[in-house]
Amino acid sequence: MEKVNVEQKLSLFADHWSPKIVGELNGQHVKLAKLKGEFVWHKHDNEDELFFVLKGDFKMEYRDKTVVVKENEFLIVPRGVEHRPVADNEVSVMLFEPTTTLNTGNTKGELTKHVLEKL
Amino acid sequence: MEKVNVEQKLSLFADHWSPKIVGELNGQHVKLAKLKGEFVWHKHDNEDELFFVLKGDFKMEYRDKTVVVKENEFLIVPRGVEHRPVADNEVSVMLFEPTTTLNTGNTKGELTKHVLEKL
Repeated sequence: MEKVNVEQKLSLFADHWSPKIVGELNGQHVKLAKLKGEFVWHKHDNEDELFFVLKGDFKMEYRDKTVVVKENEFLIVPRGVEHRPVADNEVSVMLFEPTTTLNTGNTKGELTKHVLEKL
Repeated sequence: MEKVNVEQKLSLFADHWSPKIVGELNGQHVKLAKLKGEFVWHKHDNEDELFFVLKGDFKMEYRDKTVVVKENEFLIVPRGVEHRPVADNEVSVMLFEPTTTLNTGNTKGELTKHVLEKL
């Protein structure tokens, strides 16, 4: 029931591809993340995933197209759809997704974060 | 899988206390709303509700305290907690909540919206 200031939370971390939990409701997490560079191709079999751009822009690559998502725009990636976020410059995003969501989905590797920090 | 531009969607309506659906994922709706004035006291028995302020600010009144929520801040109102949003000036907010959420919760009346427009 306390408010969360997004700018303040974003100031607390600098690492890329490492979502931080800033809220939880209805079995969903609200996360903040900073992205830069190319992520791995992956999909989430059971989770739809929302990316809301707070600052900057990035490209969401699908197997058959690419969508550029800019500040104040959001994108919902449906479950089962392979995707790869690519950010030429650092972008700050808010994520909204089930608490069960693993950042790299079905592609486990060195970028996989099994435990996320709560801010 | 198409992106949604929040500013563009906000430009499509002017009415207050009438949330518009702009996205759906994992049984949740993403809504946009413009608030001005005093809403009704209500609670949601089964739904937590997130208010993210896009432009302006508003007060969330609880029975025992008031939280002022400003641009770039969000607030999660847990299920079962009575609340009343009050906006002295117009504020634009993004809502995340289950698709089952009725805007006035347990307080049905003239402000209740049984059917929401999708933008």
